[in-house]
Amino acid sequence: MSNTKENQLWDLLKEQSAYKEAIALTHWDMRTKIPKKGVEQRSEVVGFLAEKLHQLETSDKLKELLDELKDTVTDDVMKRTIEESLETYERSRKIPNDEFKEYVMLQSKSESIWQEAREKADFSLFQPYLEKLVDYNKKFANYWGYKENIYDALLHNYEPGVTTKTLDDVFPKLRKSLTDLLDKINSSNVEPDPSALKASFPKSQQEAFSVEILKRMGYDFEAGRLDDTIHPFAISLNPNDVRITTRYDEEDFRMAVFGTIHEGGHALYEQNIDKKLTNTPLATGTSMGIHESQSLFWENFLGRNETFWQSHYELFKKYAPEHFESVDVDTFYKAVNEVKPSFIRIEADELTYPLHIMIRYELEKALINDEIQVKDLPHLWNEKMVEYLGIEPPSDREGVLQDIHWAGGDFGYFPSYALGYMYAAQFKGVMDKEMNINQIIQSGNYDSIRNWLTENIHQYGKMKRPLEIIEDVTKEQLNPDYLVDYLTEKYSGIYKF
Amino acid sequence: MSNTKENQLWDLLKEQSAYKEAIALTHWDMRTKIPKKGVEQRSEVVGFLAEKLHQLETSDKLKELLDELKDTVTDDVMKRTIEESLETYERSRKIPNDEFKEYVMLQSKSESIWQEAREKADFSLFQPYLEKLVDYNKKFANYWGYKENIYDALLHNYEPGVTTKTLDDVFPKLRKSLTDLLDKINSSNVEPDPSALKASFPKSQQEAFSVEILKRMGYDFEAGRLDDTIHPFAISLNPNDVRITTRYDEEDFRMAVFGTIHEGGHALYEQNIDKKLTNTPLATGTSMGIHESQSLFWENFLGRNETFWQSHYELFKKYAPEHFESVDVDTFYKAVNEVKPSFIRIEADELTYPLHIMIRYELEKALINDEIQVKDLPHLWNEKMVEYLGIEPPSDREGVLQDIHWAGGDFGYFPSYALGYMYAAQFKGVMDKEMNINQIIQSGNYDSIRNWLTENIHQYGKMKRPLEIIEDVTKEQLNPDYLVDYLTEKYSGIYKF
Repeated sequence: MSNTKENQLWDLLKEQSAYKEAIALTHWDMRTKIPKKGVEQRSEVVGFLAEKLHQLETSDKLKELLDELKDTVTDDVMKRTIEESLETYERSRKIPNDEFKEYVMLQSKSESIWQEAREKADFSLFQPYLEKLVDYNKKFANYWGYKENIYDALLHNYEPGVTTKTLDDVFPKLRKSLTDLLDKINSSNVEPDPSALKASFPKSQQEAFSVEILKRMGYDFEAGRLDDTIHPFAISLNPNDVRITTRYDEEDFRMAVFGTIHEGGHALYEQNIDKKLTNTPLATGTSMGIHESQSLFWENFLGRNETFWQSHYELFKKYAPEHFESVDVDTFYKAVNEVKPSFIRIEADELTYPLHIMIRYELEKALINDEIQVKDLPHLWNEKMVEYLGIEPPSDREGVLQDIHWAGGDFGYFPSYALGYMYAAQFKGVMDKEMNINQIIQSGNYDSIRNWLTENIHQYGKMKRPLEIIEDVTKEQLNPDYLVDYLTEKYSGIYKF
Repeated sequence: MSNTKENQLWDLLKEQSAYKEAIALTHWDMRTKIPKKGVEQRSEVVGFLAEKLHQLETSDKLKELLDELKDTVTDDVMKRTIEESLETYERSRKIPNDEFKEYVMLQSKSESIWQEAREKADFSLFQPYLEKLVDYNKKFANYWGYKENIYDALLHNYEPGVTTKTLDDVFPKLRKSLTDLLDKINSSNVEPDPSALKASFPKSQQEAFSVEILKRMGYDFEAGRLDDTIHPFAISLNPNDVRITTRYDEEDFRMAVFGTIHEGGHALYEQNIDKKLTNTPLATGTSMGIHESQSLFWENFLGRNETFWQSHYELFKKYAPEHFESVDVDTFYKAVNEVKPSFIRIEADELTYPLHIMIRYELEKALINDEIQVKDLPHLWNEKMVEYLGIEPPSDREGVLQDIHWAGGDFGYFPSYALGYMYAAQFKGVMDKEMNINQIIQSGNYDSIRNWLTENIHQYGKMKRPLEIIEDVTKEQLNPDYLVDYLTEKYSGIYKF
């Protein structure tokens, strides 16, 4: 009997998994291949498939099976699958169907209004939509419930286990360290010269170099592919089909090269999830923060590492234009690591990046807690930019309107970028005790790095929750010191302080 | 009330349409982009989506709505949609569920066994599977029912309205004319020189020329795209997203150029279906035969036409390797139209091609009618090759094992290739009275050709049945004389008889 029920559950999980793959494929196609006129009809197809998946995840039949099996199953994977499915069921069911539908329509409408508002640098167009989005999110947060801060209920969607309190303990300390470093850099006499990187670099050559690095990272091209897109992303259809995209700027190779390494880091996580989790809801990264730790690990600790460029500069020059023959590797390394406050988050250097995140976190936390109003966002944003980064955006296009997240209703998402960065530095702290990372990077064979990540992180998928991973691997809690130490060491070297 | 029922039906049709688009996308992806290791999981996804679609098409709820609405709806599109849906429902429901499932598994298994058998040129491996496939098809044909010949029930799947009798009236006459022409060609002193076409032709240049021709044909690249594949095909996700693929052989441009024009012909049909049919089962080509008439129309009557090459040879040479500077257009034109009996259907010239089809037709008709046995196929095939084409395949790889159709259980499909060819010639006969095709081809602007095809054929999708199209457009029945006249005129010119 119990066996039959388990089979019934497996069948339902496989159905969910089939819809998820079909949805992922339609998304991938819409962002990389779809012809212009196909978009309208496709949006309906995606909506339909998403609704079907939602119905499955919230069906009475599923709930009954989960309840019947939750105390009797012995298999670990099945136990955790049931927990995860029950949580999805309960969170989804707490939102009334009609409100959910209205919200989905609002999201879609808001994204197109946001696009227009950003183009026109006119926040007032977006304001009424953002107000509604904030209201819905407060309402949903109350449906879901929380212990201390209403914002916790939203954080849970992206980084379960992390609370507002965690962030408020960590961020001010991190901010202080970063702004201190920034002051030192600003008073330094060293001036990296990013103009040294400017050379017309054919797309096909940038691609060839990126592919070479991806292969060395261990990205499996038999279980994935690399395509062009406007906004780079990694997407998992299943652990055997994890695709990445990148964007080529022929006048600036950094976009494609660092972007590919970043997305490659995400993809390695998904490709190396234990295959026994396939067709369960556990066959994906455990949280946004842990995911970002993987992409940033590779992008920063490999891609922006001095040893990496010292030992790979000849390889790079094989693909790069002749211009680089006259750029020595030291100039090159300093140029790709220039620290300079700028307006756009996704173009920020690795030192100022977390400051961009904190601004967003503080504002959205205050919004959800009714401490500020949507209409005040533009000037509050600009004030914080001046306070943290010392520069003021010339318009809301380079300010509060730059990111799509809020237009999509994603409140609680931004902190995971900074968390991921701190996690990555913490992981690196542990690795440093077990191996000589620079020596491995120098060898050009990164297998032992990837194997370590797979063994400690990737293989588990959602079997372990994010804080479980952090504690199991690092034997401590979230600790920003590792990141500060890394940045201090690196930038005191570059800027000589 | 009636309005409510109609809305309910529309909702069900939209669901079917969403599944169809998702299935089409997964197929396209599997044949063009999917990484190797993703195939296994994807096959399950496709199977799942296909089962969902099948459930919708055969649901009691759908049947009730169709029955309630069939006599009351007044809208033409809705009327024909109901007819078509009822037919799908009834044919599907006639097959017991367990037999259908067994058959689907047998198909999939047979295709992989066939692949092995073909590689090893060993028919005995495939024979037991083919026997079962024939048995199932006979059984299904009896479930579906027929008036005169059991084979009619299978033909109906691909070319509704055409019967064994139709084919038996037409094929022998066509065969006689073709073999007479072939005799004349064989005794001619003219010898086209296909070696004149051999030159290393970079893929990117072949593609650029193919795209240029596709654009002139009116293929809308905002509602489609062109990709690489092993087996070229056209696929419609919906009329605003119709994709084509082609295969490049850098040593022989004919594969890609004629292949692209052929698939482009299929795609024009699907792109130009009236948009009011979107989301109904009528938003696709009305039959395999009419579809093939469109691809062959463009491939042969445009792509292998003397005026086309005379007026486009300079354009071609802009993309082609220098080698062609020394090949005059007359030599070129004759070389691309060489007639020479050969073993492989898909490599056959346009004159011997229908003979390949007739061999398959005669054999499958006899199989389904219990007049021959599966085990006798190899020697019967070879006998017919000698009789019709004067050559004997060196092994079953170049003989009875060459096509995948029977391995997929597709009996009744082959005739549509020859029907399409005759239809195309008949359509051309009508066009010739209304316009000067050669003059249009010469101008390089084929709009009036495409508009004629859209107005008379494309726009209707499945609103008209295949024989309705033939009669409405040509004011007569299927008539092979047009094809024979076309071939006679063309090849008497080339081979001087």
